[in-house]
Amino acid sequence: MEKLVLLQRDEQKKRVAQVQECIAQCGADALVVSDSANLYYLCGRVFAGFAYVPREGEAMFFVRRPVEMEGDDMAYIRKPEDIPVILAERGVTYPAKLGLELDVSSYSLIERLKSVWINSKIENGSSWMRRARAVKTDEELRLLRISGEKQATTYRQIPKLFEPGMTDYELQVAIENVSRLEGNLGIFRICGPSMEFFMGNVIAGENADTPTPYDFAMGGRGMDPSLPGGASGDMIHRGESVMVDVNGNYTGYMTDMTRVYSYGEVSELAKKAHQCSIDIHEAFKTMALPGTEAKALYEMAMEMVKERGLERYFMGHRQHAGFIGHGVGIEINEFPVLAPRSRDVLCKHNVIALEPKFVIPGTGAVGIESTYVVTDNGAESITNAPVEIIPLEEH
Amino acid sequence: MEKLVLLQRDEQKKRVAQVQECIAQCGADALVVSDSANLYYLCGRVFAGFAYVPREGEAMFFVRRPVEMEGDDMAYIRKPEDIPVILAERGVTYPAKLGLELDVSSYSLIERLKSVWINSKIENGSSWMRRARAVKTDEELRLLRISGEKQATTYRQIPKLFEPGMTDYELQVAIENVSRLEGNLGIFRICGPSMEFFMGNVIAGENADTPTPYDFAMGGRGMDPSLPGGASGDMIHRGESVMVDVNGNYTGYMTDMTRVYSYGEVSELAKKAHQCSIDIHEAFKTMALPGTEAKALYEMAMEMVKERGLERYFMGHRQHAGFIGHGVGIEINEFPVLAPRSRDVLCKHNVIALEPKFVIPGTGAVGIESTYVVTDNGAESITNAPVEIIPLEEH
Repeated sequence: MEKLVLLQRDEQKKRVAQVQECIAQCGADALVVSDSANLYYLCGRVFAGFAYVPREGEAMFFVRRPVEMEGDDMAYIRKPEDIPVILAERGVTYPAKLGLELDVSSYSLIERLKSVWINSKIENGSSWMRRARAVKTDEELRLLRISGEKQATTYRQIPKLFEPGMTDYELQVAIENVSRLEGNLGIFRICGPSMEFFMGNVIAGENADTPTPYDFAMGGRGMDPSLPGGASGDMIHRGESVMVDVNGNYTGYMTDMTRVYSYGEVSELAKKAHQCSIDIHEAFKTMALPGTEAKALYEMAMEMVKERGLERYFMGHRQHAGFIGHGVGIEINEFPVLAPRSRDVLCKHNVIALEPKFVIPGTGAVGIESTYVVTDNGAESITNAPVEIIPLEEH
Repeated sequence: MEKLVLLQRDEQKKRVAQVQECIAQCGADALVVSDSANLYYLCGRVFAGFAYVPREGEAMFFVRRPVEMEGDDMAYIRKPEDIPVILAERGVTYPAKLGLELDVSSYSLIERLKSVWINSKIENGSSWMRRARAVKTDEELRLLRISGEKQATTYRQIPKLFEPGMTDYELQVAIENVSRLEGNLGIFRICGPSMEFFMGNVIAGENADTPTPYDFAMGGRGMDPSLPGGASGDMIHRGESVMVDVNGNYTGYMTDMTRVYSYGEVSELAKKAHQCSIDIHEAFKTMALPGTEAKALYEMAMEMVKERGLERYFMGHRQHAGFIGHGVGIEINEFPVLAPRSRDVLCKHNVIALEPKFVIPGTGAVGIESTYVVTDNGAESITNAPVEIIPLEEH
């Protein structure tokens, strides 16, 4: 028999305590969780079932599958109706105010859970989990650093994967292969239905300017209208930039990283915009301290962009994205969000992907993305690879 | 400017009519859709926004992104509150009874939409879409046949990808690479949160018997507890079976196919179980006619398994799955479901993946999966490749 909870005891207590702080702040008594990303956060594995986090005391796990798990903190159930029965047997007080994952669970599931806790007042607990998860523990930072290193190792191999005559899609598939052999888990976890991607995007030339369904700087027609965005299958031409923004999920925790490659020389405007992105990153590194407002970082970037007359290309050209960075961890779209109306304030050990990007007509997308840990001394990059536009090797 | 709706006029009318039939059967007046798979079904592309399907007349599309689309049947919106305003301007009657996607949309989104249509009685429209999508049009069948052919082409290359000393994971990555180069879109669409996979599973030997969080015959530890299921990273040993069940999404429509390979000889018990799976497929081909009850197909399979004394290995060993087949199309888990308590009845042009599988301790998983079109003459396979246990080539 294997233990259900895979996290070290101390580590798990720390995570549960972060969630409990959010529960208490909202005056609630407990939170019920069934989302895979949230279950993984709370116990170190994905399973089918539920977690119950009371405002005080131990979290408990209610498992449907897999079979043959054990632990004092778990019980097998057939249906959610079993949960309050087991909790009562264990002397857990019935929650007057209960949080459920209203932003991520289906309406049907929430209605079912509401009927299970019919005497509880229901609150939206989705943001409690998102807030707790935004501040990473040391163990989470360790996993993120491993992902960052492996992602950088993958990216360093990109220039030699290219051959003249290749399509953007062929280059993407070659990068995916290297990435998987480096241990990438492949899956790209995104909270909610806001985006669909496979392993990320490789975008060359004009294709970067094709609007997509997503709030996303980089465009791309995609290979099929069922999955719009990213590589188009067109050949990479001389003078084009190739932006690579491929999934960094090597540990269950993802880093997010973009680098730009060129086939031959790109335009002066593209070089200037790329340098602006690098300079925004430099400014971010010193400015992103605990206590900094997320929107102030957005404003700083916008100001640098305007000073250099680049705003019509910033975060897209035909279509613009509304943010320049985002928290990242188990999912790609975590808190905080660096956007003009964000109310987020940076905390120590937030992990943030900063992605000031430009789409330059005739050339393609430029600008870099790196993932940072917010520390008392500023933002520390954990995706370390050269930031310049890197020439693709011509065999 | 590009047209939003990519389907041919006749094709789109046919699909909308199938949905309208389900709307009418429930006495409702309209259905609002925002799920990517459902939007793709209704207009031939994924976009960010909503579709409005009235019981009679034309469907209308309300788009947030991408920009620069056009069509008489679409309008740009900033928020869902804009939709009833535009519909009223166009003379569309306010719906007394409105379907929403309660099984797939988040609680928060549905609450928002309920406040937009505050005077409508809300019904669960999720199953209307699932029922409409279960009967494929000729155009959908064309796309499914292409996927089936490409998936079979991919699978035929598997034996030569193997090298002694390889791990299950390395073989999986090699298969993924071949599959992507064959045009696989990569993404594995699953309705709801019941499962998470990357591109599918390659499972060798004892690893097949590791229970997973999913209602799934094949087990597998996976490479990381954040993505349990599938390849474990262990070396493939002589005498083991290697089951390959990798995504067949080459067109936006997926076929589902499993074949079994062997490194050296597998046990007699494994061969016997594999033959039982092949025989179930043969029986299915003649029995799966329009009007056949889905549960009768399950019972037929169960009977054949019991006759041969194989029930303890059927659909898993340490953990058992509760079904032997499922509809497939845009998503991997469509209607009908071949399960003991299924109330589904087969219709002409259902597309069904049949997967009677066994887990044999000491050997691994055996049995095949093929995707079939239900016709008046029985079930026609569209994933045609040899069904026997195929030896991996030893270089």
